[in-house]
Formats: sequence, C-alpha cells, structure tokens
Amino acid sequence: MLIYKDKSKPIEERVEHLIGLMTIEEKAGQLVQPFGWQVYEHTDGELSLHHAFKQQVQNGGVGSLYGVLRADPWTGVTLENGLSAKQGAEVVNLIQRYAVEHSRLGIPILIGEECSHGHMAIDGTVFPVPLSIGSTWNVDLYRDMCRAVATETRAQGGAVTYSPVLDVVRDPRWGRTEECFGEDPYLIGEFAVAAVEGLQGESLHSEHSVAATLKHFAGYGSSEGGRNAGPVHMGWRELLEVDLYPFQKAVEAGVQSIMPAYNEIDGVPCTVNAELLDDILRQAWGFDGLIITDCGAIEMLASGHDVAENGSDAAVQAIRAGIDMEVSGEMFGSHLVEAVHAGKLETSVLDRAVRRVLTLKFRLGLFDKPYVNAERAEQVIGRAEHIRLARQLATEGIVLLKNVDRTLPLPKTSKRIAVIGPNADQVYNQLGDYTSPQPRARVVTVLDGIRSKLGKDQDSVLYAPGCRIKGESREGFENALACAAEADTVVMVVGGSSARDFGEGTIDLKTGASKVSDHDWNDMECGEGIDRMTLGLAGVQLQLMQEVYSLGKELVVVYINGRPIAEPWVEEHAHAILEAWYPGQEGGHAIADILFGDVNPSGRLTLSIPKHVGQLPVYYNGKRSRGKRYLEDDAAPRYPFGYGLSYTTFSYERFTLSANSIRVGESVTVTVDVTNTGKQEGAEVVQLYISDTVSSVTRPIRELKGFCKVVLKPGETRSVEFVIGSDKLQYIGRDLQPVIEAGRFSIQVGRHSKDTLCAELIVREDE
Amino acid sequence: MLIYKDKSKPIEERVEHLIGLMTIEEKAGQLVQPFGWQVYEHTDGELSLHHAFKQQVQNGGVGSLYGVLRADPWTGVTLENGLSAKQGAEVVNLIQRYAVEHSRLGIPILIGEECSHGHMAIDGTVFPVPLSIGSTWNVDLYRDMCRAVATETRAQGGAVTYSPVLDVVRDPRWGRTEECFGEDPYLIGEFAVAAVEGLQGESLHSEHSVAATLKHFAGYGSSEGGRNAGPVHMGWRELLEVDLYPFQKAVEAGVQSIMPAYNEIDGVPCTVNAELLDDILRQAWGFDGLIITDCGAIEMLASGHDVAENGSDAAVQAIRAGIDMEVSGEMFGSHLVEAVHAGKLETSVLDRAVRRVLTLKFRLGLFDKPYVNAERAEQVIGRAEHIRLARQLATEGIVLLKNVDRTLPLPKTSKRIAVIGPNADQVYNQLGDYTSPQPRARVVTVLDGIRSKLGKDQDSVLYAPGCRIKGESREGFENALACAAEADTVVMVVGGSSARDFGEGTIDLKTGASKVSDHDWNDMECGEGIDRMTLGLAGVQLQLMQEVYSLGKELVVVYINGRPIAEPWVEEHAHAILEAWYPGQEGGHAIADILFGDVNPSGRLTLSIPKHVGQLPVYYNGKRSRGKRYLEDDAAPRYPFGYGLSYTTFSYERFTLSANSIRVGESVTVTVDVTNTGKQEGAEVVQLYISDTVSSVTRPIRELKGFCKVVLKPGETRSVEFVIGSDKLQYIGRDLQPVIEAGRFSIQVGRHSKDTLCAELIVREDE
Repeated sequence: MLIYKDKSKPIEERVEHLIGLMTIEEKAGQLVQPFGWQVYEHTDGELSLHHAFKQQVQNGGVGSLYGVLRADPWTGVTLENGLSAKQGAEVVNLIQRYAVEHSRLGIPILIGEECSHGHMAIDGTVFPVPLSIGSTWNVDLYRDMCRAVATETRAQGGAVTYSPVLDVVRDPRWGRTEECFGEDPYLIGEFAVAAVEGLQGESLHSEHSVAATLKHFAGYGSSEGGRNAGPVHMGWRELLEVDLYPFQKAVEAGVQSIMPAYNEIDGVPCTVNAELLDDILRQAWGFDGLIITDCGAIEMLASGHDVAENGSDAAVQAIRAGIDMEVSGEMFGSHLVEAVHAGKLETSVLDRAVRRVLTLKFRLGLFDKPYVNAERAEQVIGRAEHIRLARQLATEGIVLLKNVDRTLPLPKTSKRIAVIGPNADQVYNQLGDYTSPQPRARVVTVLDGIRSKLGKDQDSVLYAPGCRIKGESREGFENALACAAEADTVVMVVGGSSARDFGEGTIDLKTGASKVSDHDWNDMECGEGIDRMTLGLAGVQLQLMQEVYSLGKELVVVYINGRPIAEPWVEEHAHAILEAWYPGQEGGHAIADILFGDVNPSGRLTLSIPKHVGQLPVYYNGKRSRGKRYLEDDAAPRYPFGYGLSYTTFSYERFTLSANSIRVGESVTVTVDVTNTGKQEGAEVVQLYISDTVSSVTRPIRELKGFCKVVLKPGETRSVEFVIGSDKLQYIGRDLQPVIEAGRFSIQVGRHSKDTLCAELIVREDE
Repeated sequence: MLIYKDKSKPIEERVEHLIGLMTIEEKAGQLVQPFGWQVYEHTDGELSLHHAFKQQVQNGGVGSLYGVLRADPWTGVTLENGLSAKQGAEVVNLIQRYAVEHSRLGIPILIGEECSHGHMAIDGTVFPVPLSIGSTWNVDLYRDMCRAVATETRAQGGAVTYSPVLDVVRDPRWGRTEECFGEDPYLIGEFAVAAVEGLQGESLHSEHSVAATLKHFAGYGSSEGGRNAGPVHMGWRELLEVDLYPFQKAVEAGVQSIMPAYNEIDGVPCTVNAELLDDILRQAWGFDGLIITDCGAIEMLASGHDVAENGSDAAVQAIRAGIDMEVSGEMFGSHLVEAVHAGKLETSVLDRAVRRVLTLKFRLGLFDKPYVNAERAEQVIGRAEHIRLARQLATEGIVLLKNVDRTLPLPKTSKRIAVIGPNADQVYNQLGDYTSPQPRARVVTVLDGIRSKLGKDQDSVLYAPGCRIKGESREGFENALACAAEADTVVMVVGGSSARDFGEGTIDLKTGASKVSDHDWNDMECGEGIDRMTLGLAGVQLQLMQEVYSLGKELVVVYINGRPIAEPWVEEHAHAILEAWYPGQEGGHAIADILFGDVNPSGRLTLSIPKHVGQLPVYYNGKRSRGKRYLEDDAAPRYPFGYGLSYTTFSYERFTLSANSIRVGESVTVTVDVTNTGKQEGAEVVQLYISDTVSSVTRPIRELKGFCKVVLKPGETRSVEFVIGSDKLQYIGRDLQPVIEAGRFSIQVGRHSKDTLCAELIVREDE
C-alpha cells in the first residue's frame, strides 16, 4: 500500500509522501476551486458530470469545489431545477468517485459550501442571521446550531464552510451588518469559539463536522463610509485589540481555515499582507490550517487594489504572502504553474500551500472515507430537531425595543388584528442574505405565525402588504388602510430585505396574493453589496405606517431587517417595537411567540442603534475623548449596546467583589444576585463591563468582558458569578504587546452598557 | 556685559549662559503662558498691570502670555472696554518693561496671539477664513496676507502666532473645517510654506515677522464622527503621507513652533506621542523650534485621555515626550517644579524645554529690542493696503457652483434686487471663528456691498433678514416675502455662523434693524466645538428660500458658511449659487464684485461637497477600492475637488510631456496651452494630478501634485508648465519610507479633479 493511502500512518508522513509524487500541475490543481454547480448536469432526475470537469480531474486540476449544492439566483439553481437532499449527496458522491477513481493519484475533492446560518442548499434549515444569533447572547444555543448545520452539510458531502463571519461592525451603513454578530469583539469572540466547537466538533472525521473558515481577516467591518470592501483606516493597536481578537480566540479553539478580507488596511490589501497572514496568524498565534482568499480577491490585487501588474503577478504575491487557495476561482492554479516554469516562483512555496490543502483533506478523513450515505442526508437535512432549534434561536434573538403601557404581550382573544406591511408574508424577506430558495411550506411568515398562534380565531387576523420595501408605489395603501380600520391592533411588519431575485415571491399589493415575478421586482435593500447612506425605512413604508397610525389604532411595529433602523417618527409614535432582524424560516412562529407572550423577550442589542446616520460611528466601546454632542443632538445612540426589554422586571442586588485589591496576575470573583421581580418567567442577560481608569494608552469607555443569560421564574433569585483574571484586565500596550498595568479598574455589572452597578478594583504591582 | 545680554555672541552661547544662571523656578516659569488679557487693567484710558502679575514676574514665573490683545466673548474684551491699536502696543510695552526691569534676569516675555486670518485684536484686519483662502488657490496672495498679519501683530508686540492650521479635513461635520485650507495635503503644503515665508519673513527680528506655529500635529482633521478632538483611527502610512505632509513642508521652510493636536491616534494622545514629537519631528525632520501644547491639553491627559494619574504626572509625561510649553496655562510650571524637587524629573529634561523657549526669544530679537513703537501700530493696523488684500482674497476665494443660463453676472441697472437672508447684513456671521469684535463701519456686509456697487441706484435694493441661522421663528418671513415680491431678482444670503455672542449684532427679524442683544441670541452653527450631524441649512432658512422661490423670481443663492452645505432642493432650484465661505470684513464688496461681474469668479473647491451626510467621507483622493454606490445614490460628491465655474470658458490644448519615459530620479516637464475662449477676462486654476497605475501599496485614485492660477484676457493663450520630479512621484512604501517605483503613471492636467486630459508616463528602473 502506498504510504499516503495508509490510514495507519501519521498525516504528516502521508502528506509528504503524496507531495513527493505530484507534478507541478497536480500541485497547482490542488489550490483551485471551480464553481461546484457548474460541474454536473441534472436532467429528469438523472445526474451526470460534465465532460470539461472530467477532463480537468484527469489532468489533476481540481483540489476543491465551491458550492456544489449552493442554490440562489447567482448559481441559477432554483426549487424547480435544484436537487433534493438525497440527490445533493448523490452528486457529491459522483464527483468524489470520479476524482478518486479517475485522477492519477486519486485525491478526493474538498467540497466547500456556504453555511453561515444554515447550509445554503435547497431544504437546508434556515436559521436566523448572525446579527439575530448575536442578539440571543446564547452561545450554547449557537453551538448546537453549528452542530446541526455541520450535520446537514456533511450529510451531503460538504466538508468546509465559509463561516463564521467574525467582523466587528463599526458602521451599519454596511450591507453585511446582518452577517455579523455585532460591534463587540469579546461577544464575537465567544460566538467564534462556539462556532469552531459546533462546526468542527470533536473530530473532523465525524459526520457531524465540517471545517470552519473564519472571515474576513481583518478589519472588514470598518470599511470607509460603510462601503463594502472599502479601505480601512486603522492602526495596529486597534487592529490587534478589536478586530483580531475574535479571530485569535477562534484560532486558539483550533479552527482549520481562514479567509483574508478584500479590504486594504493602511494601504496594504489583506490578501497580500504578510504581517497579518504570517507574522501574526501563523507565527504568533500558531495557526496551522488553510488560508483561502475571498472570491476574486486575487484578481482584485491587479484590478482594484492595483498592487499587482496582472493576475499572474497577483497570484505569486498572494502565495508568497501566505495564501493557499483561491475561493471559487481557477486562475490561481494556472498562474502558479506558469510562474514556476518561468522561474518566478520556487516549488517550495507552492509545496507549502499544497501541504496545507492536503493536510486539511487528511484531517477531514476524505482520503479514507470520501463518500456519504445519501439516504442519511434525506433524514438529517431540515429535520424537526433543527427546525425547533431555528425557532428557539429566532425567539431569543428578538429584541423588544419599546413597550408603552404593556401594549405587549397581546391577548390571544377578543381582539381583531391587522397584519400589515411588506415583510408580513414575504417568504424570502425574512431569511437574510446567503440563503437558498425554500418551499413556501417550510417558511413561517409573521402572518403564518400569528394565524397559527390564534388557531380557530384566525378569522380575526386581517392581512395586507400595503407596499413594497422599496419603490414609491402606494397602490396597496387603500387595502391596507381598510384592513387597519377594521382592527383593534395593527401589527406593522416593515424593515428591509436581503432577498435577491428568486424568480418568485412577488406579491400583489392590492390583494396580498403571490403573483408571478417580473424581473423588475427587486426589494433588496441590504445584503452583500447593498450599502446604504441613510438608515430610515426605505420606500413608502413610513408613509404607510403614518397613515395607518392616523386611524388611531394600537400600533405594534415589527422590524425584519439586516441593519439598524433610525426612524424617529416610529420611535415616537409606535406603542411597541420589536426588532427581529432576519429571523430565518421559523421567524413567524418566533415573532408570534413574543407578540402573544408565550415567550418572554430576552434578546439584547449587540450593536448600538443610532438616532441618525450623521452620528456614525456610535459603537459603545469608544474612547473617552470621542465627543458627546452635535449641534442638532447628542452623539449617543437611540438604544445602547446590550439593551432590550422584557415582560418582567429584574433587580440586581448584593453586587460584591471577592477582593477589592489584587496583584497583577491574580483573579477576583464578582458576584451579583439577580431576581425576577415581575410576574412572568423570563431570561435576563447579565453583563459584565470593565473600564481601566488610568492606563498608558487610552482605553475604551467600557468593554464587555463577560455575560450570562439566566432564566428566572417569578420571584426566583440567581447568584451570577464572573471571574476576572488577567485575560479580562490586559490590553495592547504602547509596544503593541499585551500588558496588565497596576492601577484602578471600574467593574460594572448590569442589564446593558448604560445601566450598571459599579465597584472599584485595585490591581497592584506584582511584588 | 553678561554674555546672555551681549548681542554679539551667538544665540547658543547666550542661551546656555542664561540657563546656567536660572533657578528651577525661573526655568519652569519660562514654560508657562498665563492669559494675557488678565494681567492688566484698562480704566478710562489708563493702563496698569495687576499686582498678581507683577508678583509672578518678580518670582521669575512668566515665560509667555497668551492673547494679551485677544478680544472676544471668551476674554470679555469688547469694542467698548477693549484697547485701540496704539493702546495695545502700549500695554505690551508696559508688560515687557516690567519683565525686563523687574525680573531677576530681565527675560522678556513671549507674546503669543491668535492670527489665523488676521490678528484677533480689535481693529486687526479680518481676512477670509482659511477655507476661503484655500479656495483662491493663490499662494502668493496668501503669503502677502501673512506678511500683513505679521506686520499688524508685531506692531503691537505679538511675537508668535498660533497659526497656520494645517489639518487635512476628512469630515466636514467638523466645526473647524473653516479653519483649514481643505482636504488635500499637497495644496495645504503649498499654503503651509507660504505661511511660514509670509509670517516669519526673512528675519525673525523684523517688524514684519512673527514666529509661526503649525497646528494641529497630527491627524486632527480625521477625528471620529467629525467630533472635535475625537480619536483618530489611522495607520502610520496614511499619517505620514497625508496628515504629516504639510507639516513636513513647513518644517523644511523653517517654521519656529508647532502645536500637537488634542486627539489620540490609535490610542496615543499626540501630546505624549514621542514617536511623533521626537522620532519624526525632531530626529527625522530636524525641527529645532518650540513645541507648545494646545489649550488644556496637558490636563486632558489626566481627565479625558486618562493616560496620566493627575496633572503632575501629565506634565512630566508631556515634557518627556517633547513638550516645551503649555499654551494658555500655568499648571505645567508648578507641576514641573514639584517633579524636579520630588526627584521625578531630571533637570536636564527641564533645561531642554527652557533652551527652546529662550532660543526662540533670542531668534525673535526680544532680548535686544523688547519694545515696539506704539505710534507705528496705529499706522499699520487695518491700513488700506491690508483691507485691499482682504478684499482680493475674499473675491478670489468665492466659488461659483451653479449658473443656469448666465443668471450671473447681474446687470447693474434696470433690475430691482431683494437681498434676503440672515447672512445678508449680519456683521459677525461673515467673519468666521477666531475673530474679534469689529466696529460696524469696518465690516462690509453683502447688503453694504450691493448698495455700494449700485451707487445712486441703491434705492432699487430691498432688504429683509427673513429668519435667523438657527431656530424655528418665521416672524420675518412676511416681510421677506413682501420684499421679494417687489423685486426682479432675489439674492438669498444664507448659510452658517461661527459668531459667538458678541453682545450686539442682533437683528429685528421684521424690520431688519439692529437691536440690543438679548442673551438668548446664539446663531453659532459652526466653529470650534460646534460639530454637526447633518449638512443641510439650519433652522428655517430652507423653508424661507422655498417660499421666496414660489414667487417665481430669479433666485441667486449666496452661501456664507464654514463647512459644505448639502441641500438638494437648493441645488435643484436656485438659478445661481455662490459659495463664499466666511469672506472676512470685505466680504460684501467681494461678493458684489462677483455678483455684478466686476470680477470673474476664480475660486475652486478645496474640498469635495457631498450630496448627503450619509456619504461621508467623500474626499477626492481616496483609494480605488473605496466603493462607488449606496442603495440611494452613488458615493460621488455633488461637486468635486477643484471645481468652480467662471463667467468665461477655457480650453486646454497641446497637452504634452517632454518625455514619455524617464528613469527613476529624472524629471519630466508637462506643458499645456490654456486659452480663454470666452468674452471676459478671467483666471483659471490649472491643476496637475498624478496616479500611480500599479504600486506595492495601494495608491489614491489621483493626487494633486501641482496647480497654477493664470489670468487670461479673452482670446489669450498661456502655456502652463509643470515639472514632475521625484517629489511628485514618490510615496510612502511598504517599509514606511519614501520610495519611487518604476512603472506606469497617469499624468492628468485639467480644470478640476474629474475633468482632466491624461497621458501616460513610464518610469524605468535606474540602470
């Protein structure tokens, strides 16, 4: 048996043996990743591989495939022409079998998929977007979700996901805000670790595991003007302390793959930033996994960043800086072959990248078990357990922003409810970006959720879309106002949409009925590439709401959207406001659970909601010198980081530190008793913040350093404990190294970043 | 004769001798700068020194005074209680005489004044604000202005000015935008050199010279959210290339003093940033002058930045980092004395600072000629020549933004003109921040200017203020609309105000008459500390304009303001728009000159005017990856950098390079023939931009690298030449050092940053 095929040999040995057998072309082939949906044909239930792909495999040229199962307008894969769960697994098996049996060395292919909040394949469970997940502050639940996602993905042969997204959002104009957990590096770091644990599991061989890819490394959430992939203006200290922190945590947790960001930082594109990719990531942090570019990022070096003469120059610069593979691209490979033959690239640099690709394949067990069980795919994908998890996440991610005079929860009887708005019954608008088309029956809209909740009383639920997300048409106003006039309570479901044109889902504004799509339909106002210069409701949504309001009904506003909305009129006039973000396929049930009080809201904001776009940036953990006022208003957000209301009340008492003074290197325990002082069970997110009073470089006003979600029955008290050790007291000092400085610290525990109890902790020099 | 008193000895020797004679307290005394207007009394024309000041001098404790002559609401010095030009000189003489005769060592005092656009003293000529000066693109004129300012200041004994402001404006929300030349480092650099040449002259001994102080070092124009003194997020490369560039040019020109900025950069406050103050400024650039803090900046280290335990710690950190003196503060000195006595500070560090203060005093000739001629002060301050210069600068700084169907110039006869708006006849609103109260007769408002221009026809000029800059009162609308109804043309003079409450100047909105001030009056919407979160017209100005417009008259809008206005309605409806910024005391004449065509507008924008605050930042010289669109609109500004219309037209022809290819280190000459193809004499600002096509770090889309203002008669052609040498081709490379890289460059010459002719230049490796 050849060494590289021998399971009993250590991976290092197998890799080196295999590299020794490979030609330059075969090596370069391992570094490319063609589009997966383009390699096969699906006709009348028959699956076959394209000739061109077979040729490429025979010539040793396919290391990986991107999105074999990805379905969306970009791939052209629809509900009609797409694959079932079982077929998806079968086509991956077909691909792998061809690679194993028809390439010279039989190297299996690394199947890479998009799985940020569910496997982006038909029938994959669609969980809420990461901004909603962040708002749950429930890391355990997210870990469970990641395991579910990994299980669904691996069941079809997907072995690596291009998630989690760990960008620190500093500007909500950015259309990818929805894809991120929020604005706080510590919070993101906790979710990052959970992602690695949940996705990669205990063993990468497992049928519950895929390799995770951290992205986008780094600074991508601080792009100029909130414009996607725009330049980042940032010094090393902030980069190390804020943007790199979650990545470092995930690397420590053993992540297998990482994706550099499109953007430049201070003039250097991340794709060729060797200080970032090598000095920090590999040398300082010890990362030994794969570095894979973002889509088209190598080409962008030559046209966009213009740091390379052409694609070939770009490819050589990228691999030298530490890039191992190009996501969804093929030119990397041919450029590298040319460069080696032209003497512009040493084989050793090529080998380094190939070694990392092969190592990941061995770690994933692909050589030893390249095929999946297609029957099993059918069983695990979209299973009830996963759907329950999606509902729980969505429910916990909903943030109650306003609730005048206990407007919410609504009674389940004796009221007539009008459900109005473009997001009330639009299947795709609630799923967020990076989702696949889903059968209507699998997605629960708000209208569905409310009707389902009210059971036989559902005749009392009226519905009208009223308007679209975008555009000036008031065609639906009349019908919406007629609905509202008949109701006691109006639930207005407005916000945004990241739904690309799925070729369906259009609504007739007058009747609310679905109608066949025309290609002018486009309600996308968020998502990748859709950045905004205002933060108000798009189109005529506000006008619709104002006209409805003028009828004098109780107005409950439900936002379904991918970035914060700053709309002063709504803040002032609505009786209650729920922020649901994009809540995924179970969103309608989740929202109904909250609206009618079956679940007490426990979501908390993970980013500060501004009053006006002109205040940006408003992230809570800025420096003390940041300034407090503009001429027109103060610089404070409308709702602070960590904020969210509940149907019950919580008290914080007996806030104590185990010591008022410790030495550098020692720990202290903080305790607080949290009591549910209301009449309904509810969950509170207890938040720990720390401020360094005086330090050798300037420090944030406060920083989240711990949190704990506790469920309390009425009258129940829980003692919540946080241990503050060196990790929570250190920061990046003058010399760009972590340091703990003696001095005074303010320790704050409370319900959100602007409502805390405080105590002083003295840290003394180690004597 | 004591060595330090001996003119014939070299300055170094005199300084060392003097330091050798000084006590710790005397040394520390040299580093403080009490408020100058607080040391004397002015009663019934009698001038006397306060006892406390005398005591302080006798105890050796006054190295410098801040603003002996400064008059404004902050100092409480008004037209009524303030000093005439002659008295100003006399009081400085009184102060100097006391210091020379009653301190142990007879050290004269360094009199520091604010002179950014005129000496901030009563009767000092008020030139336009730097944003207007920048818009002239006329460096020679500014050099003349600086000489005039130096002459007026030195005539009263002022020896150092806290100008020029060299901040690169990246966010016009910032209230100090008006104080800066614009958004381009090269342009600012040219003005910076002119400032040093004009202010310092050929010899610092001269009665036409004061020492210039560059500020704010550095990054101050990039504060977070446009909030004054907010944190700066910036890496070293951008800092070196953009923000430090103008400072470096001014240091090379021999500037004597520099002021660190309040802000932090990547966590380090500039006041204690030794890399900035020592490594770069002193070591790399060889600066040998004085470093003086901003007002309160040392205290801010202990309360604001919180990098120091208390004032004493802050003072020690500051002097160690390279600070020599605290502007308008006294605590620095006592903290340093304490620190030396407590063994926390070496005398050698104290001596270093004292050496720099004394050196500057010797260089200025203060030891040898401490007194001024008060009679001469009366002659030179506010003299006709300076006023003419103020008018010319104001005229050249006006930018014609829009001119539909040749609305402008207006005919001088046969039309009835209504001059309407809160800035039409408000003395202080047109002067900008950092100006002193001025007698009504010395300030020419737009109403004055138009009336003066029309001479005997001035009955045809109607006037109504209409509204204030801020506030919701529509009390004046009726009268304004009545005026407008009677006119053929309406000149609406709106915009902003940086006028602090001067205790006068209030207008009766109904009649337009001045009335006694009440203390509620405050129309300040710009200036230091007044940052905005929107960029539209404040108050009800837009509504006033819309109501006037509805009368169907020809609408000419004149903006008088300190930052760009983004007001889409005005852009769409006005027939002509002039941007005059704050044009200074001669503003009304300047605007009338342009309105009636006696001068052809030649001002060009030095910052990009956005369409909406949500587009920020919009500076023209961003990176190619910055993104082109938002959902609502593109990301381009309304008016690009360099833009401005003329009453004539210019053609650009025969654009040639002396060589298409050069070696690294060589120069090339660019020539273009510019012809006035219209019927009126006019000045064109010919602009040279360069783009590096491919480079090892990302480069701006284009960068201004030369400009030339040429006055052309109708039909006249001028051949304009630019030499492109290494200085224009180099940039800050990967290793943070300047580099010229071989490759292709795009050379662009034209009328503004978005309208140029292009040619390619190849730069080859030096062989």
